[in-house]
Amino acid sequence: MPRTILPNSRVSPRFSGICTFCRYPRLEDVSSENRPVDWAIYGVPFDSGVTYRPGARFAPRAIRDASQYVKAYHLAHGVNVCETLSLADAGDAPVKPYHLEENLKVVAQWATDLADPFTRLFAVGGDHTIAYANILAARNRLRATGVKQDKGVALIHFDAHLDTVDEVWGEKWGHASPFRRAIEDGIVDPNAMLSIGLRGPLNREDDLEFARAEGVTIVTADDCDGPEPNAASRAIDPFLDSLGTRPVYVTFDIDCIDPAFAPGTGTPCPGGLTTRDAFSLLRRLRGINLIGADVVEVLPERDPAGVTSFLAAHILFEIIALDAAARAAR
Amino acid sequence: MPRTILPNSRVSPRFSGICTFCRYPRLEDVSSENRPVDWAIYGVPFDSGVTYRPGARFAPRAIRDASQYVKAYHLAHGVNVCETLSLADAGDAPVKPYHLEENLKVVAQWATDLADPFTRLFAVGGDHTIAYANILAARNRLRATGVKQDKGVALIHFDAHLDTVDEVWGEKWGHASPFRRAIEDGIVDPNAMLSIGLRGPLNREDDLEFARAEGVTIVTADDCDGPEPNAASRAIDPFLDSLGTRPVYVTFDIDCIDPAFAPGTGTPCPGGLTTRDAFSLLRRLRGINLIGADVVEVLPERDPAGVTSFLAAHILFEIIALDAAARAAR
Amino acid sequence: MPRTILPNSRVSPRFSGICTFCRYPRLEDVSSENRPVDWAIYGVPFDSGVTYRPGARFAPRAIRDASQYVKAYHLAHGVNVCETLSLADAGDAPVKPYHLEENLKVVAQWATDLADPFTRLFAVGGDHTIAYANILAARNRLRATGVKQDKGVALIHFDAHLDTVDEVWGEKWGHASPFRRAIEDGIVDPNAMLSIGLRGPLNREDDLEFARAEGVTIVTADDCDGPEPNAASRAIDPFLDSLGTRPVYVTFDIDCIDPAFAPGTGTPCPGGLTTRDAFSLLRRLRGINLIGADVVEVLPERDPAGVTSFLAAHILFEIIALDAAARAAR
Amino acid sequence: MPRTILPNSRVSPRFSGICTFCRYPRLEDVSSENRPVDWAIYGVPFDSGVTYRPGARFAPRAIRDASQYVKAYHLAHGVNVCETLSLADAGDAPVKPYHLEENLKVVAQWATDLADPFTRLFAVGGDHTIAYANILAARNRLRATGVKQDKGVALIHFDAHLDTVDEVWGEKWGHASPFRRAIEDGIVDPNAMLSIGLRGPLNREDDLEFARAEGVTIVTADDCDGPEPNAASRAIDPFLDSLGTRPVYVTFDIDCIDPAFAPGTGTPCPGGLTTRDAFSLLRRLRGINLIGADVVEVLPERDPAGVTSFLAAHILFEIIALDAAARAAR
Amino acid sequence: MPRTILPNSRVSPRFSGICTFCRYPRLEDVSSENRPVDWAIYGVPFDSGVTYRPGARFAPRAIRDASQYVKAYHLAHGVNVCETLSLADAGDAPVKPYHLEENLKVVAQWATDLADPFTRLFAVGGDHTIAYANILAARNRLRATGVKQDKGVALIHFDAHLDTVDEVWGEKWGHASPFRRAIEDGIVDPNAMLSIGLRGPLNREDDLEFARAEGVTIVTADDCDGPEPNAASRAIDPFLDSLGTRPVYVTFDIDCIDPAFAPGTGTPCPGGLTTRDAFSLLRRLRGINLIGADVVEVLPERDPAGVTSFLAAHILFEIIALDAAARAAR
Amino acid sequence: MPRTILPNSRVSPRFSGICTFCRYPRLEDVSSENRPVDWAIYGVPFDSGVTYRPGARFAPRAIRDASQYVKAYHLAHGVNVCETLSLADAGDAPVKPYHLEENLKVVAQWATDLADPFTRLFAVGGDHTIAYANILAARNRLRATGVKQDKGVALIHFDAHLDTVDEVWGEKWGHASPFRRAIEDGIVDPNAMLSIGLRGPLNREDDLEFARAEGVTIVTADDCDGPEPNAASRAIDPFLDSLGTRPVYVTFDIDCIDPAFAPGTGTPCPGGLTTRDAFSLLRRLRGINLIGADVVEVLPERDPAGVTSFLAAHILFEIIALDAAARAAR
Repeated sequence: MPRTILPNSRVSPRFSGICTFCRYPRLEDVSSENRPVDWAIYGVPFDSGVTYRPGARFAPRAIRDASQYVKAYHLAHGVNVCETLSLADAGDAPVKPYHLEENLKVVAQWATDLADPFTRLFAVGGDHTIAYANILAARNRLRATGVKQDKGVALIHFDAHLDTVDEVWGEKWGHASPFRRAIEDGIVDPNAMLSIGLRGPLNREDDLEFARAEGVTIVTADDCDGPEPNAASRAIDPFLDSLGTRPVYVTFDIDCIDPAFAPGTGTPCPGGLTTRDAFSLLRRLRGINLIGADVVEVLPERDPAGVTSFLAAHILFEIIALDAAARAAR
Repeated sequence: MPRTILPNSRVSPRFSGICTFCRYPRLEDVSSENRPVDWAIYGVPFDSGVTYRPGARFAPRAIRDASQYVKAYHLAHGVNVCETLSLADAGDAPVKPYHLEENLKVVAQWATDLADPFTRLFAVGGDHTIAYANILAARNRLRATGVKQDKGVALIHFDAHLDTVDEVWGEKWGHASPFRRAIEDGIVDPNAMLSIGLRGPLNREDDLEFARAEGVTIVTADDCDGPEPNAASRAIDPFLDSLGTRPVYVTFDIDCIDPAFAPGTGTPCPGGLTTRDAFSLLRRLRGINLIGADVVEVLPERDPAGVTSFLAAHILFEIIALDAAARAAR
Repeated sequence: MPRTILPNSRVSPRFSGICTFCRYPRLEDVSSENRPVDWAIYGVPFDSGVTYRPGARFAPRAIRDASQYVKAYHLAHGVNVCETLSLADAGDAPVKPYHLEENLKVVAQWATDLADPFTRLFAVGGDHTIAYANILAARNRLRATGVKQDKGVALIHFDAHLDTVDEVWGEKWGHASPFRRAIEDGIVDPNAMLSIGLRGPLNREDDLEFARAEGVTIVTADDCDGPEPNAASRAIDPFLDSLGTRPVYVTFDIDCIDPAFAPGTGTPCPGGLTTRDAFSLLRRLRGINLIGADVVEVLPERDPAGVTSFLAAHILFEIIALDAAARAAR
Repeated sequence: MPRTILPNSRVSPRFSGICTFCRYPRLEDVSSENRPVDWAIYGVPFDSGVTYRPGARFAPRAIRDASQYVKAYHLAHGVNVCETLSLADAGDAPVKPYHLEENLKVVAQWATDLADPFTRLFAVGGDHTIAYANILAARNRLRATGVKQDKGVALIHFDAHLDTVDEVWGEKWGHASPFRRAIEDGIVDPNAMLSIGLRGPLNREDDLEFARAEGVTIVTADDCDGPEPNAASRAIDPFLDSLGTRPVYVTFDIDCIDPAFAPGTGTPCPGGLTTRDAFSLLRRLRGINLIGADVVEVLPERDPAGVTSFLAAHILFEIIALDAAARAAR
Repeated sequence: MPRTILPNSRVSPRFSGICTFCRYPRLEDVSSENRPVDWAIYGVPFDSGVTYRPGARFAPRAIRDASQYVKAYHLAHGVNVCETLSLADAGDAPVKPYHLEENLKVVAQWATDLADPFTRLFAVGGDHTIAYANILAARNRLRATGVKQDKGVALIHFDAHLDTVDEVWGEKWGHASPFRRAIEDGIVDPNAMLSIGLRGPLNREDDLEFARAEGVTIVTADDCDGPEPNAASRAIDPFLDSLGTRPVYVTFDIDCIDPAFAPGTGTPCPGGLTTRDAFSLLRRLRGINLIGADVVEVLPERDPAGVTSFLAAHILFEIIALDAAARAAR
Repeated sequence: MPRTILPNSRVSPRFSGICTFCRYPRLEDVSSENRPVDWAIYGVPFDSGVTYRPGARFAPRAIRDASQYVKAYHLAHGVNVCETLSLADAGDAPVKPYHLEENLKVVAQWATDLADPFTRLFAVGGDHTIAYANILAARNRLRATGVKQDKGVALIHFDAHLDTVDEVWGEKWGHASPFRRAIEDGIVDPNAMLSIGLRGPLNREDDLEFARAEGVTIVTADDCDGPEPNAASRAIDPFLDSLGTRPVYVTFDIDCIDPAFAPGTGTPCPGGLTTRDAFSLLRRLRGINLIGADVVEVLPERDPAGVTSFLAAHILFEIIALDAAARAAR
């Protein structure tokens, strides 16, 4: 008996029905034997933190739609995600579109209280500010289950940008700043933070300074060039080794991927990862103690063929499959 | 206390949340005091009956998405639809994409059994074949509530085409034929059928013959030209007078409207109604005894600015508002 | 037995087959009993004359594609075009994309020699320069059949612009100038020229001077406002009466129609005719002695829903139906 | 010698050059004999006030681009705008994307101080909040030139919505509220306010209450139906008569126009004005004492054929032409 | 003297003329010295077999259009395809859109009888069901020329999916099943079948079972990663060696390629081959005894920049060039 | 103090203001201490030389727009371009859209005389013909500064095509021919010309002859496959070594890049470079004596997500960064 009950596709084809993430049941519809769910996936339709093109508020809707085509069996890991995990769509978090900081509080509080504390949270943005809220909630929930969190969580961060700018237009809570705030507030441990996908051009050379000074491990898009072992694998492998079993959060900004594969994003950057690069890097994370994740910065209005939302839905699947593979291996 | 409970828009903006038609609750979530619902709205993601461009199978999804912006108060009728009526999204009907006639049976059976027999059914297509199934279900449900249905229901039909072709490519159940079948099977009374929006070019002159011979009242798009009284009003007014209180079904093929206003459809026809023409004609129906309805033939892939799905959602609202206005008037 | 043999739609649906205009046979495939054809329709994939957005060179291809859905029976005229007329697609004229004036010579010569002199020519542009070539060919062919052409042909001109500018960027043969040249060269009679659809803004007030001085009858888009009789009908009716049986050419620039209905054009102008305005005006021409025609300035790259090419194909049908209606009436 | 020097189109075609509004010179490039300019046109790339689709921050850029095709001579008024008026592009106002109320202060202050106080201001939004700032600046500038402004300016308001909601999501300064604030703050006189284009559906019946109670004259889109005199003309004509020479501001929300003509907007509403309706209504304003204006709520991402930005550029032209016509008449 | 006569591009540029595949002559227009043609290319505008997005019925039209830009000389093989081979466009096969199995019979029969039995057949889909019909016709034609076909043809299959599902929605003939049927019916030899491009996620683990049990050689997209020799080359090279001179059919589902390169398809799958991967793999096939081929599953409505149809036209060229290279080498 | 003054992004976000290339000042606005500028960037809105899809005349506008997001610090070179170089937007060159050869003369003359002779010129096309004009101007300007130019400049040419066709449609100056003319006229030295990105199919085998005979070094797209050292690096490295300090011009046709990354171009060719390939190749040029450059053949109408213009703006940045890196290294 599967842990996640999907619609009967003999009756309700993938182009049919009210759209939930990957056709997983709504949280309130999960049967008692499948509770508490292993993962609650929720949207955060919020984009007031952007510095260029807005519109990521429509991404949860677009990704729910695109995810109807996500299937259950992960070929590379050899695991059926829906047989292994109980998964649910928790709807969208409440948002405060006119107020950045207040929004983060509202989202974090709602997420902290969501379902059972042992349920992991996957947030679908929205702009990258919302990662702060979901990491904070994940940390709060770890504590609620008795896990100590003195140093902040470990963070694996896919992104074309570091998102550690201090402030923009007089504002500390925009989408260029979430990890600056998370490090300052002690909810992310910079020595256990790996950032993959950075590339130029940058506004200024000193945009890198904070992260470097704090000890963040940075793997640029260029580092991923060429067959392994390359600069990327030489940095990532020891980083992963060092993590051991400590709780890890994965945040995935879709702009780490090249605009050819993911045009629908607000601050694109040419020269990014391919989809296969990204899948390969994600699969390499197998074995981490994953305690929360997000995918952010999808901009449906710049996605005329729908490939970006479609890809984001599969990134979600790849990340959750890490947990399924880990549990199946036990 | 409203009859239809909408999300609190202070928490969940219109760009937020799992999409149901017009943000109405899912049928299973309606509270007991609002049961039975007055209208159950359901999708029929089926387009195997088309003769040109397929893709209307994605219309229920697109219209749910677009309908998030439909509001509750009808300005012209002066009625708040959600305070007057209990409305719900019943999800999508089961479909059989590979089998036309069997699909209609499956849909009609599912719809016949849906919720309470006093609940009216609004079907969101899908191609126009699905009107046959919803009319049949509406007729069956009338009977289940004790209303005699000897002659078939009255039908008000908005369409650029008559849809009374006998067969196409050896098939009797395609989207060119639903009203031929419905008249032959006695579920629609041709003498109480009004078809609005017809225009050329036609395949053959004799495409009109069946409808004329059966006594259908035809109002062409050209008849709607110019200030009233015009050819349209001279035909429609006595038709409506003749209906009295008999049960009326409204079927709305979005292609009755001009491609400028509704490009997203599979068999468009230039020279159609404007949106204001259509709204005006629909509002003129106030007072009919509406027992079921549909909106069909929306093709999201040909709707780059989303105006067609958006319009279809408002057509749905206009049709349901007829019932709200009628009940509010009592 | 029809005069124009269309593909058997039981075997070859409208989405099937190599695209010719309206599925009419290629000129070389017309059977002997249907020769000479009444109309040869040909494309002129040429846009080097434009002053703003190029791309109309792809219009013959796009209109062939869109015209697959044009049917044969004209509802308003009550005539089956394919039963009344022998129609054929003559392919595309040779073009000289790098040389404006030479191109017109090449096209005009090719068209002058095309098929039988009694066959009428319908040119599908391309930019408006190509009208000059087709009018010249039509005039030459009239002469070849013994019709005197002392004063030039009568011209009914649908357009947002007058196209009588003397020169642009040092060039006399661009798409702003074809009727200046045609009047100067005596192939169009300005006293028998009616221009419908003009609207502002203009570059300069004196853009109107040449046409006014030459005696062109001008009906602006604003003149078409309101129920008839209006300024438009008061100008058009006596103009048509004055034509008698003299040969008339109809040139249709798609930009006479509003961008809502026809976005795909290179020099659009808001505030234009609706499709129903245009159809009504064209049908009013019934009875003219039509000896040639064109539809021009469709720009497929600005036509994301395909409505402009689709409309242009129906404009072609409406114009040819004028001849069918006239012959059927005899 | 023209008042506004345009690029020499023999050298720099309309598809050429750095884009300013309608190719008017940048404010700093205007020669001394054409100073002070009659109108300074400026963009306000701000959309943080929206309640649904964001993206109007890109509208000034899109409208500058589209306006390259706006010509100078107004056919209906018979006036060359660039010969009559000195016009300039003043660039974009500074904005504060993260802070609604502060943004209005910054924009209003910048606009108040712009150029000469006798120069009129035309703001290109951005969302409708920015109208508040431009009206405030216009009022301040009137005062600076010695015109008393006790009661607030008269306002002619084109819009599908009244924009007089008290607050949304706890915020008083969003795009649903600018005229509520402007009336409360005394910068608009509700008894001299005319709102054209309202249509349903509305959130609640009482959305109309404030405007009605304050004495705003409301003309719905439905009032514009049919030949004149109609409900619209019966309301507008006496309103205009009552204005006399008092200063009038025109605010034009592109969503007053139907989505067929203007799909690119954030909160579209089917059943709106046609472009010809809008032009006709605007031309009817000839004779008012126009002291400022704006066009707002264009959303380029929903405008795949570019018709909305193109139309907005022509709306700008139509409004400024009112002043040109008035001055030419003197 | 070339074997395939192309239009004179000095007269008829690539944007000109009635569109046939790659501008090759229609089959009926091939001169006697170039008969029988080496390859007849035909479309199958059929998509009733899809399980998700329909619309591939328009692919033959879109690919004819895109293929106007395909040139004749293959740089890597060093062969001019049109000088080496006689090629023709045979138009579109008859189709039965409402009946899956009957459609395959009609197409297979028509193709079996097409032109000379020594002419090879290239089918342009349509959905993948049509491969069954073309393989069957190729097999029948081999037999007609005296080649024994006891075990079924060898098959090289590019696809993101195996297409060996037993049935979907109660139907055995859908696009998920053609190779299941072809193997069961003995027209394909599973031991001589190579499938390239498979990737997850899958519906179920046992989706692979049938193919594995039958002995199909499977090369996943991941197998193609990294420099050679890699998993892909280690599987493909011995497979090709084993084929010897036996007849081989190549079926190319465009979804084997990543959505960045080929967004226009109905069941896309992220993480696919690049175009250069695909070209390299195809060129590796040089030397096989190619007796038929197809390219399928192009969906023009999801191809906003046209790159997928354009690519499909070049895939067609690459496959036919294999035969040209083989013949030139003799 | 930076050499290039950018707008204060605290006041004027990247979505704000009149668009110049990369937000660099207009040439006439550069302060005296930053004069003469190191690079003048100008547009050439000209596309009359194309052989397939026109529309590149709109590329300067689209690239200005897209370049608003180009930042200043080059991560790989470790140089801030705006601190090192004085850069300016010189507007668009005058053009003669109706006359190919005359256009080149007008552009070359204008560019020859632009600003200071020590200022380098970057041309943004337009079609590839305009490279001829900018190379000629660069050569003239070198001479004006006393640099001998006996043999013509060295040329590094990124392109899917060689552009050395003798003539097309009777015209010697089209976009297939600029380097044929430049070599014949002695302004490019073929022995110092490197062409990267060529791929098939070609019209004829002998399309390569002229370039080969003249001694051009050709690196195909296929040569770039696989890890280095590969065929590409084996050809490029000695070529670069041989250049020494001689003046080098870089011409970048966006179609050298694969359509997945750069769909918006007029004559696309599948199987091209990735963006990372291109960046890597460009960065390899570090150290050349760069004296002029261009980026051409961007077609905005085929670029629905805007990725091509966005990429072209970053190509411009990469090329100019070569000069910044060289100067910073001194």
